[in-house]
Amino acid sequence: MSEAAQTLEGWYALHDLRSIDWPAWNAASAAEKDAALNDLNKLIADWEAVEARKEGSLALYSIVGQKADLIFMHLRETLEELNDIENAFNRSAFGRFTRKEYSYVSVVELSNYMAAPGVDPLQVPEIAARLKPILPKSNHICFYPMNKKRDLQDNWYMLSMEDRKAMMRSHGMIGRGYAGKVKQIISGSVGFDDWEWGVTLFADDALQFKKLVYEMRFDEVSARFGEFGAFFVGNRLTAESLDRLLRG
Amino acid sequence: MSEAAQTLEGWYALHDLRSIDWPAWNAASAAEKDAALNDLNKLIADWEAVEARKEGSLALYSIVGQKADLIFMHLRETLEELNDIENAFNRSAFGRFTRKEYSYVSVVELSNYMAAPGVDPLQVPEIAARLKPILPKSNHICFYPMNKKRDLQDNWYMLSMEDRKAMMRSHGMIGRGYAGKVKQIISGSVGFDDWEWGVTLFADDALQFKKLVYEMRFDEVSARFGEFGAFFVGNRLTAESLDRLLRG
Amino acid sequence: MSEAAQTLEGWYALHDLRSIDWPAWNAASAAEKDAALNDLNKLIADWEAVEARKEGSLALYSIVGQKADLIFMHLRETLEELNDIENAFNRSAFGRFTRKEYSYVSVVELSNYMAAPGVDPLQVPEIAARLKPILPKSNHICFYPMNKKRDLQDNWYMLSMEDRKAMMRSHGMIGRGYAGKVKQIISGSVGFDDWEWGVTLFADDALQFKKLVYEMRFDEVSARFGEFGAFFVGNRLTAESLDRLLRG
Amino acid sequence: MSEAAQTLEGWYALHDLRSIDWPAWNAASAAEKDAALNDLNKLIADWEAVEARKEGSLALYSIVGQKADLIFMHLRETLEELNDIENAFNRSAFGRFTRKEYSYVSVVELSNYMAAPGVDPLQVPEIAARLKPILPKSNHICFYPMNKKRDLQDNWYMLSMEDRKAMMRSHGMIGRGYAGKVKQIISGSVGFDDWEWGVTLFADDALQFKKLVYEMRFDEVSARFGEFGAFFVGNRLTAESLDRLLRG
Amino acid sequence: MSEAAQTLEGWYALHDLRSIDWPAWNAASAAEKDAALNDLNKLIADWEAVEARKEGSLALYSIVGQKADLIFMHLRETLEELNDIENAFNRSAFGRFTRKEYSYVSVVELSNYMAAPGVDPLQVPEIAARLKPILPKSNHICFYPMNKKRDLQDNWYMLSMEDRKAMMRSHGMIGRGYAGKVKQIISGSVGFDDWEWGVTLFADDALQFKKLVYEMRFDEVSARFGEFGAFFVGNRLTAESLDRLLRG
Repeated sequence: MSEAAQTLEGWYALHDLRSIDWPAWNAASAAEKDAALNDLNKLIADWEAVEARKEGSLALYSIVGQKADLIFMHLRETLEELNDIENAFNRSAFGRFTRKEYSYVSVVELSNYMAAPGVDPLQVPEIAARLKPILPKSNHICFYPMNKKRDLQDNWYMLSMEDRKAMMRSHGMIGRGYAGKVKQIISGSVGFDDWEWGVTLFADDALQFKKLVYEMRFDEVSARFGEFGAFFVGNRLTAESLDRLLRG
Repeated sequence: MSEAAQTLEGWYALHDLRSIDWPAWNAASAAEKDAALNDLNKLIADWEAVEARKEGSLALYSIVGQKADLIFMHLRETLEELNDIENAFNRSAFGRFTRKEYSYVSVVELSNYMAAPGVDPLQVPEIAARLKPILPKSNHICFYPMNKKRDLQDNWYMLSMEDRKAMMRSHGMIGRGYAGKVKQIISGSVGFDDWEWGVTLFADDALQFKKLVYEMRFDEVSARFGEFGAFFVGNRLTAESLDRLLRG
Repeated sequence: MSEAAQTLEGWYALHDLRSIDWPAWNAASAAEKDAALNDLNKLIADWEAVEARKEGSLALYSIVGQKADLIFMHLRETLEELNDIENAFNRSAFGRFTRKEYSYVSVVELSNYMAAPGVDPLQVPEIAARLKPILPKSNHICFYPMNKKRDLQDNWYMLSMEDRKAMMRSHGMIGRGYAGKVKQIISGSVGFDDWEWGVTLFADDALQFKKLVYEMRFDEVSARFGEFGAFFVGNRLTAESLDRLLRG
Repeated sequence: MSEAAQTLEGWYALHDLRSIDWPAWNAASAAEKDAALNDLNKLIADWEAVEARKEGSLALYSIVGQKADLIFMHLRETLEELNDIENAFNRSAFGRFTRKEYSYVSVVELSNYMAAPGVDPLQVPEIAARLKPILPKSNHICFYPMNKKRDLQDNWYMLSMEDRKAMMRSHGMIGRGYAGKVKQIISGSVGFDDWEWGVTLFADDALQFKKLVYEMRFDEVSARFGEFGAFFVGNRLTAESLDRLLRG
Repeated sequence: MSEAAQTLEGWYALHDLRSIDWPAWNAASAAEKDAALNDLNKLIADWEAVEARKEGSLALYSIVGQKADLIFMHLRETLEELNDIENAFNRSAFGRFTRKEYSYVSVVELSNYMAAPGVDPLQVPEIAARLKPILPKSNHICFYPMNKKRDLQDNWYMLSMEDRKAMMRSHGMIGRGYAGKVKQIISGSVGFDDWEWGVTLFADDALQFKKLVYEMRFDEVSARFGEFGAFFVGNRLTAESLDRLLRG
């Protein structure tokens, strides 16, 4: 049975990074700002209602630095729902004060799953919960896309299954050392976006992102085979902090 | 006889990816929006009439994520017709509410064809149908361009014909495992665009794109020689869903 | 005598690729469009007069896909004349409806020329004609820039002259197989632009571009040493088709 | 104990590079310019007050060349404070005359620290001062991000700890040769931004940046393993020179 | 003694490449154009006065192709003076009709200098003149940045000093073959900009740029170790040709 068959997929994910069009926002009247924030808060309320019904989830953070101002991470059962979310945002009074910065399309994934024979893993509650997770409300988010390298003798996809498994096991051990400090959601994006995986980390102490990713970099699977895209780090936004971000 | 001589070509293809200029669209009056959508629907009706006459084909999907809002995939007998389509779109009332995001020029291709001796393959109905295909109306599309690598010892073009054939055969076996789930159209773009091939997949279940592309990545031809551009994934648009995308 | 000394140079070349600013163009009045097209047609008439005097040449094609709308390929005796052409275009009523997309500066080149001893090659009429060519009026154009690789053991510039000559000879044989189907103009751009050569192909049947470039890709000189930039493919524009492109 | 555990972290850093929107600035009235500069000077005064309380630090320099006009380097205890700084700037009357050019998120870091056993390094005053530094007021700044390479046999992360230590020691010796001439602040950005480290140098004589970085380039750790991003060099701005930059 | 210590530095250099904002320029009134050109001519007069006092130098050329319209190459004693030049340009009436395209910050450099023992090279008039050169008034300019490669076995910085010297000597021999035809100014940019060196060539016959750079490309130091950025080629601008460029 091939490796591909061994992954389990759950909710689709859209990471939607936007920046504020500050000149337009600063030039807007108080009434226009109210209307825009009203629209945004209505969208957020809708998305939170979906989460309450366990039909999806939302993480909303600001991004530190110029890469974006806001990241909306959405989980949903279908790509159609994710597309509806984007379009509703684009049509909203708030949307017109934003610019697109980056997005990522993927699907929550558990790989190399080993179910007991004769058991449907999707019926195991712990697995189902990991495939359709309610996103944590941690203080910080870290998102980055990544590939496994295919570069001459450093070609992950030409290794034997056993070699890959051994390396992934040691990799997992490092992750487990951060249990309780960093929560990690892996989503697969082969066929959906430009990298093979998206990694989304949540932590109350942002320094743990650095500790974890740096420690992993010395692990063979990252050292020889990890290829990383842009890193985005952010702070959790509540209704109040979002208002403060925009109005001071 | 050289490998190049063994490919058969059919219709030219233009993948035309556009995003909506949301600030302009949101600011437009209802009458302006009506006029724009009218123009767009007239263009689509024209293109569907061409398809009905079997002189070309159209696939229209939304794109998930920020890379684009819409993808129009057009097939036509000549490059002149494809260029006329672009220019008509650009001159239309709808076109002015869009921005260019990405395009791809290629020609539908069957490679390594082995016809029975003395037979003109273009007279074989099944082959002619694959070279001038009516595009499926599946729920989802996946498009990406790709190269075969030429990197030191991983150089596809320095391999013997036999080695290439053996690898392509095993590659084709994986594809066949997805028969009924994923329909694949390969178009060649050497001399026409920046990558060597465009791959367009159609499926009712988008997860099958991930399963197929990921499984193939472990195949030597992809693992050692595949070089991939951006991936675009989308949802089928009908007149109603297109209207909903734009007007909510 | 060094390889560099063996190239012969003729006219300088400017490939000038522009896109139409469609929102501005669509918003222009009929009188503004007339004035702009008038200006453009006057420029074209000037350039055609230069060609008639054999002091330069012009190829004007549309580009298929979003990379550009128009390509103007100009040949002239000096860089000053090419610069004057650009500036006149930029100051024209038509120019203001266009945006810059890509340009390429090079000089028509014949390489590895072996003249009979004691003969000045520039006095050989056939050679002079190839160095200062009147551009064909074929249906299609294909333009791409390229390098010879310098990557570890695949380093063209570290090969002996004999090895390079042998490979170029076999390369030339493929080209000769397309005589009558594809006309090729090579221009050198070392010291002038970002790639080492520009390749401009002309053909009545665009499919021949794909056949030629693909067949060459299996040739060692391309397979191991060819490094390619963007490919642009287009359709010939006449006064009528240019008017139709812009006004429908 | 892993290498990752051996780094000490202090204040978070935000390098915020902006360019002036010159057309807008030049078109502004004297009163608008006064209001904008007033706002900027108030922000700077706030940031200097934070520095006076030793709760953060600011370096403000102009950038030579077109990459940016201004660099604000901020140090703070938390990512939230850095984000507040950005947002306050974006909402300010001066902010609307600027454009984003580049930013970098990192944390001041000391690596491979060897404390005496049983000692908490953060209680050692010299170390605490290096982790939470007041930025120098030197004439010039130089900033660049960098990675340690992971490229086939040149893979820093696959070396043994001893090899890495020996190379870093020799590297440090070069740095020490510039004591009194160049002050260097290293910040780690794994998990925070696109490169692994940010290097910020301060010197009264800008030539010392070149001498130092060039000398290091021959050192094995840079020669084989250093991978560098963009370099930004600038001149110190005081209230007067900032006013002169903007008003002449 | 290290290699770094063997370079001598002179004036700082700023290559400042700008394009004309043609739509704005074409829309300007004759009076606005006069005011803008007046401002530009005043700046040029100031810069020429500095050159007359031998406190700096200016080269002003148009650029052929779309990469830019104008290149200003400035030499000055300090980075502060270069920054003042930029800012004065940006505040000028002409500046607002231009857009930034590319810039390069470096310092004129002589490398591997072997002075007689006990002699201060800066007191040798010929050397001082090469470090603080008055730029030639040749018909053409060619500018490009470059690196010495650090790629696995092709790593310049891991070679012994003797190997580097031998290669540079042979490289220099080619350059000397163009004496009287091409004047070359090397400026070092390690620590100042994104490449290690800037190369600026001046010639009355632009073809000599191609001959020189192409011949050098077969030399081991370029073939194996040269890594090149964008190439810019231009024509000398006088007050008259600048006026003609802008007003026809």
